[in-house]
Amino acid sequence: MRSNMHIIIRLEIEKAKANIGQIATLIHENDADLMAIDVKKETPEETIRDITIKVNDEPGQLKVIKALNDSDGVYVKHISDRTFLVHLGGKIDIKPKIDLKNREQLSHVYTPEVARVCNAINANPLLAYNLTIKSNSVAVVSDGTAVLGLGQISPEAAMPVMEGKAMLFKRFADINAYPICLDTTDTDEIIRTIKAISPGFGGINLEDIGSPQCFEIEETLRQELDIPVFHDDQHGTAIVVLAGILNALKLTKKRLKESKIVVCGIGAAGIAITKMLLAAGAENIIGVDKEGSITRDHQYDNKMWEWYANHTNPEKVNASLSEAMNNADIFIGVSRGDILQEENLKNMAKDPIVFALANPIPEISPDIARDHVRVMATGRSDYPNQVNNLLCFPGIFRGALDARASSINEQMKVAAAEAIAATIDSDELSEDYIIPGVFNEKVVERVRDAVVQAAIDSGVSRKI
Amino acid sequence: MRSNMHIIIRLEIEKAKANIGQIATLIHENDADLMAIDVKKETPEETIRDITIKVNDEPGQLKVIKALNDSDGVYVKHISDRTFLVHLGGKIDIKPKIDLKNREQLSHVYTPEVARVCNAINANPLLAYNLTIKSNSVAVVSDGTAVLGLGQISPEAAMPVMEGKAMLFKRFADINAYPICLDTTDTDEIIRTIKAISPGFGGINLEDIGSPQCFEIEETLRQELDIPVFHDDQHGTAIVVLAGILNALKLTKKRLKESKIVVCGIGAAGIAITKMLLAAGAENIIGVDKEGSITRDHQYDNKMWEWYANHTNPEKVNASLSEAMNNADIFIGVSRGDILQEENLKNMAKDPIVFALANPIPEISPDIARDHVRVMATGRSDYPNQVNNLLCFPGIFRGALDARASSINEQMKVAAAEAIAATIDSDELSEDYIIPGVFNEKVVERVRDAVVQAAIDSGVSRKI
Repeated sequence: MRSNMHIIIRLEIEKAKANIGQIATLIHENDADLMAIDVKKETPEETIRDITIKVNDEPGQLKVIKALNDSDGVYVKHISDRTFLVHLGGKIDIKPKIDLKNREQLSHVYTPEVARVCNAINANPLLAYNLTIKSNSVAVVSDGTAVLGLGQISPEAAMPVMEGKAMLFKRFADINAYPICLDTTDTDEIIRTIKAISPGFGGINLEDIGSPQCFEIEETLRQELDIPVFHDDQHGTAIVVLAGILNALKLTKKRLKESKIVVCGIGAAGIAITKMLLAAGAENIIGVDKEGSITRDHQYDNKMWEWYANHTNPEKVNASLSEAMNNADIFIGVSRGDILQEENLKNMAKDPIVFALANPIPEISPDIARDHVRVMATGRSDYPNQVNNLLCFPGIFRGALDARASSINEQMKVAAAEAIAATIDSDELSEDYIIPGVFNEKVVERVRDAVVQAAIDSGVSRKI
Repeated sequence: MRSNMHIIIRLEIEKAKANIGQIATLIHENDADLMAIDVKKETPEETIRDITIKVNDEPGQLKVIKALNDSDGVYVKHISDRTFLVHLGGKIDIKPKIDLKNREQLSHVYTPEVARVCNAINANPLLAYNLTIKSNSVAVVSDGTAVLGLGQISPEAAMPVMEGKAMLFKRFADINAYPICLDTTDTDEIIRTIKAISPGFGGINLEDIGSPQCFEIEETLRQELDIPVFHDDQHGTAIVVLAGILNALKLTKKRLKESKIVVCGIGAAGIAITKMLLAAGAENIIGVDKEGSITRDHQYDNKMWEWYANHTNPEKVNASLSEAMNNADIFIGVSRGDILQEENLKNMAKDPIVFALANPIPEISPDIARDHVRVMATGRSDYPNQVNNLLCFPGIFRGALDARASSINEQMKVAAAEAIAATIDSDELSEDYIIPGVFNEKVVERVRDAVVQAAIDSGVSRKI
């Protein structure tokens, strides 16, 4: 947190409703100092001014922005803090697809003619995919319990992330996504609510819902709804990790089936990654959490760990993280920063593949790891090979919606991972380029096509 | 329902994915006859054709449109049935407010920078009004139990109405409204669901929810949420009726307080109209339903009728509709078609005011009533003085949102009615012009300003 910040705010002031004297007072009342004023434009009705303000810190900045934004006749047009600027008034808009200029147009989209459309859908429910927004609409739903790295925050405070996600859905896959933040953290209540609001949506993207409740919520909804339900924090990450691993193995010329894989951090992401690797053919995965490897020789209170023990670690290795790393071909960390030692990397098998995905501090710094690994990926954009969910969710939902899939199943997820991997041609592939960039335009289309085909092949498509 | 309809459909066909032979087969398989084909445009990749098809009836039309719309590589660009055309793919879109061209922009609207915005709102919940879509977002929520005149239909089938409403919110008041149709008709479940999804919204518009559950749903939500909750079917109609009555009384030079008013049809709309009239000063209202007037000498199972009996009919008149009409100054019908006789109008007091709002057939035809009434209004657009909710909900929500009102109270509703009435100047006012047209541009702004002022005066504004 900086102290004694200077910020510049551009204000449009309606002279009939406000004047600079009131604004100066307001700034003073909100514990900020007015340092400078520049007139940018002046008309009889309004004036535009750039005002420089000194505030103590970021909360102080927000306090004064809020006070100005709340004043009648005063419009905040620009703030030097660009992040807050782009959030003023929210980040998405709703637009009618046609303009309504006269009664005749009104009568087609609303009463009385709309009744014919309602009757048609009531008689044939699948027409909702043709005659309503359903076929291209996704709800982005969060309860605010695990937002980014912030942990649990209020549902209102989670909205900026969900709005951002809605922007990305549109920008990358032309999908209409709407952010819904829930005023409940109760598992049953979340399930009931999402079921209740589901009829207008073609898919549900669960976002930033904490573990372990995310498993039950997703699983129950998958069983009870006939539209795709996808917890992006689990599967989005898992799919991109698999894509990266598939390409890394092309470089090391090893096979997934025969690789020894250590997954560190057995929460929602670690479990989803493990399931994805198993679905793609991995057979020797050892999960490690705070107390060492998870093995079926132990009993676990955590239901998911029970499942984990029974589906991984076939040799029942009982080991610390250090021990587990011996002779490992692949390390995938979704735990916390700096828990790996240089020594651990040296003990891995030839051509180590290390995905250190803890954010913002990876399990081991790429700068330290560089000399000891063949391929490295992180969750950060300032190193090569960033594992970013944005490579997955637009394309996988685009495909699921286009196929009118009733679910997103394992086959579709593996297809998505393979499609992401395949966007990098064999002659482009290198240690520093196993995962495509988020603005790579081929990704969404390739993922979409692969997912549509997998939906058809696995019998969940209801369209083609 | 017409039989043996001819429809014309314009198709864009991607040659790589579909050809006209397949399309002809598809049309045949869907019980329609392909009558004619015209080539409109031809390129190596695609062809655009107008095809004329004979179908048996409207369901037949939809069947073939759906089949074509569902085909890969075939795009329905136009249908001669304009109502179905405007519904293809739904009627609203979601648009990001800024374009995302590079990583830097991404970092402001999403991770990592968005975390600062989340933290700010988490520390100060009211910032949600500045930094998220909340301040301009309304949920249009229905359970599909009383949609238009159709009665109960599926939530999917109710979507076109709610989407249409969302279009109107945007077109008339620049409000972002999102349609939510619920897969439950249970009162408690509806209340729980709306509460759970409320954090991202600045207001809730309840729509087409049946009586009597609409009363409990609205009342409970009004008590438990700190944003406006407004059941438009009740209050929207009531406010526009009051506006019309206020103007009609200017013509007859009578006062509301002294007028004898018969309200016919004591359901949701009739009760809301009565409450509105009472709030505006009416003292002599007699409610009439199928079994005659509602009086406090009777006991009613229906809780709302108990309330009604205790707040109306001060002289405890026990009468049939015919009897109640004797000497009435005002008749307001929200019941069913053709239940009033010419004779009833003759028995009214001097200068009768008759609002026959049953739709599509009014309580008495304007053509019959013309010779016996001074002022007449209906719910129809093909007669003068249409009572249309569209005159109210955009402006009242615009005002409530601009004031960041915690509710829409009686004072704001009366202010809205007075503002609608006042859009017609005294020199414009006439028997055929007591209610402004829906495209009258003054209405929304005037209603908005009056509602903001009433919110401030009644202490529910949280902004100005």
